[in-house]
Amino acid sequence: MTLTLEAVRAMDAADPLRSVRERFTLPEGLVYLDGNSLGALPRAAAARQDEVVREEWGNSLIRSWNTHDWIGAPQRIGAKIAPLIGAKPHEVIVADSVSVNLFKLLTAVAALAPERPVLLSEPGNFHTDLHVASGVADMLPNLRLETVDRAEIAGALGPDTNTLFLTHVHYKTGARFDMAAMTARAKAAGVPTIWDLSHSVGAVPLHLNRDGAELAIGCGYKYLNGGPGAPAFLYVAEHLQERLVPYLRGWMGHAQPFAFLDDYAPAPGMARFLAGTPPMLSMLALESGVESFDGLAMDAVWEKSVALFNLFARLVEERCGGHGLECITPATAELRGSHISYRHPHAFELCQALIAAEVIGDFRAPDVVRFGLTPLYLGFEDIWQAVDRFRAILESESWRDPRFAVRGRVT
Amino acid sequence: MTLTLEAVRAMDAADPLRSVRERFTLPEGLVYLDGNSLGALPRAAAARQDEVVREEWGNSLIRSWNTHDWIGAPQRIGAKIAPLIGAKPHEVIVADSVSVNLFKLLTAVAALAPERPVLLSEPGNFHTDLHVASGVADMLPNLRLETVDRAEIAGALGPDTNTLFLTHVHYKTGARFDMAAMTARAKAAGVPTIWDLSHSVGAVPLHLNRDGAELAIGCGYKYLNGGPGAPAFLYVAEHLQERLVPYLRGWMGHAQPFAFLDDYAPAPGMARFLAGTPPMLSMLALESGVESFDGLAMDAVWEKSVALFNLFARLVEERCGGHGLECITPATAELRGSHISYRHPHAFELCQALIAAEVIGDFRAPDVVRFGLTPLYLGFEDIWQAVDRFRAILESESWRDPRFAVRGRVT
Repeated sequence: MTLTLEAVRAMDAADPLRSVRERFTLPEGLVYLDGNSLGALPRAAAARQDEVVREEWGNSLIRSWNTHDWIGAPQRIGAKIAPLIGAKPHEVIVADSVSVNLFKLLTAVAALAPERPVLLSEPGNFHTDLHVASGVADMLPNLRLETVDRAEIAGALGPDTNTLFLTHVHYKTGARFDMAAMTARAKAAGVPTIWDLSHSVGAVPLHLNRDGAELAIGCGYKYLNGGPGAPAFLYVAEHLQERLVPYLRGWMGHAQPFAFLDDYAPAPGMARFLAGTPPMLSMLALESGVESFDGLAMDAVWEKSVALFNLFARLVEERCGGHGLECITPATAELRGSHISYRHPHAFELCQALIAAEVIGDFRAPDVVRFGLTPLYLGFEDIWQAVDRFRAILESESWRDPRFAVRGRVT
Repeated sequence: MTLTLEAVRAMDAADPLRSVRERFTLPEGLVYLDGNSLGALPRAAAARQDEVVREEWGNSLIRSWNTHDWIGAPQRIGAKIAPLIGAKPHEVIVADSVSVNLFKLLTAVAALAPERPVLLSEPGNFHTDLHVASGVADMLPNLRLETVDRAEIAGALGPDTNTLFLTHVHYKTGARFDMAAMTARAKAAGVPTIWDLSHSVGAVPLHLNRDGAELAIGCGYKYLNGGPGAPAFLYVAEHLQERLVPYLRGWMGHAQPFAFLDDYAPAPGMARFLAGTPPMLSMLALESGVESFDGLAMDAVWEKSVALFNLFARLVEERCGGHGLECITPATAELRGSHISYRHPHAFELCQALIAAEVIGDFRAPDVVRFGLTPLYLGFEDIWQAVDRFRAILESESWRDPRFAVRGRVT
């Protein structure tokens, strides 16, 4: 029996997370399936930004570093991210971007085993991660970047491997690594693993401590709802923190930043991974984003993600068949993240036509259209609406309108 | 004849920049002499931030990368900074922090002459710059960091020198290098110079092209009024841009960021110095900060800085004598920046007492109190008020109150 709109509405009525949507502002009529590119605006972030700008910057001015504890923000927000990823509060800190943080970790970790020359990853990893590693490999003698298909990673790990770096949930396909198993495999070969959690954090349950993960980075502006270009975070397991000395340094990571000493001395713990002064407006918006998870269990969030995914996949199957869409995201929940992707020869045009119909997804080159399923602010009827409009576009072939072929969209 | 308040008020009445203060919000009664740590809030920045948060993030969401040209912000804001530093619009880009940008330049420039081992600077340079260089030197074989007193820099430049990096205006003393002369000296020894403009830009007239400067970085949150922790900028002279390949990379600096290619290829021009996704809320606040200079000639800004300095120095001399204050900032305008610093054995307590009296300056360890003279929003009467309260504190010795000795202030 095919699903009806009424049945979908009943799912909304029974959704224990339904009221969480009220924490966000979303434009009327828009179905926003791109929260994995840029999370929606938390109402609290808008109010908080007023306060940060007018009161903290405008009135308290420089004093806010103390009186409003700007100085403590990287640690404070890190500690709020920690429960979302299964880490201890002092194992997480917020700083810079994912790219810069990966660079910090790769260079610091590489120095632990200088006789091992290979930075290992997979082809098609999110390209910024590969570019960062290429820079590290080009800069440091005796290091090189190698990529092997994910099925061959375990076999490729060996005495030559310096560091393994992987993105936990793939940005395009949504495929998820088994973090515990892969980390253990690498560890058995004497190889530390850096996990990029950008497409996991805030959607997929993460248990970094439990799963033996030692190093991770992640994005603040996707499922964490931290605002455009929000600062990123780093995680280093407690036992490794004092063994890593960053090469990308700055005064905020000094043991005594306000002693103005010429000589470098790393701050204890995660603070050493800070570099320059953090962008405070973006930083404090991220704090509101992270707080949009207050009181929510990540298991419940994930359960809803699974339900949204299943609904989306089923509706596409039932209502959009025969139009050449190929789902490339694993059907098994444990093997994927919180988005669903389809391959189609005209994915670009489809994506543009959807946007024109107020369904925001993402085109990912060369032929993928991707839909982010954000449990905090998507309802089941949103999914129905999205697929309904998708079907209309496919059936009418309205995507063939030449205006939808104009390239220029950049994210 | 000693100056009177009336004479000072007459200076305000005759000040051609007086109305510029209206571009900023400042708390009533506060004398803010710390715009060289954190610039005041431009009214336009507050209004713009509302729009950025509620409309661009909240309503346009991911589409804003195109529709509100978030993607073009690093170049666009860079081009607005360019006239303030005497550079061409395409020679400046906004990204990351000063520390991260210095790291990018040092590592890229070092590779131009791998046979030259010395990164050269002066002791007491702003410590983050020294920490960054120490990281580069510790990371790369055959490189080391050396510092020599500024009088000895010219003599130290030689075939061993890889790169000279200096802060144009010293954060503590306010002493300014002769950029043209020092750059030429270094160039004659085959050495590129990286200038840190953090304490110059937006206050001191800069002519990077005219003065032969090839490389620079600078801060967005001081005289540029970009907000706490605002992103920083990089400048690379046109002829050098294609010769430098950054090692700290990220997708925003790729030749085709949205092609999602595994292989790195640097973007043409300054865009290659971008790394990860920029913190857009902080970025767009910086744009308003830079726009607070619209229509102003940097020569007029500097002329007012000189007048503010002369007034401050004269009033302290006339009214605060006999209390052990020693001015450590050069009296000659061409040899200094836009702040004035005094050494005093109880500088910390004095600074705290001043803050309690609503005069915000900065303590700089171990014994300096520093006052930023920001031409855009300080009036001459502000200077009078500041010195008047300073005198009261010195004469009454109210700074001896034990609460002013409590350490904890962090910036």
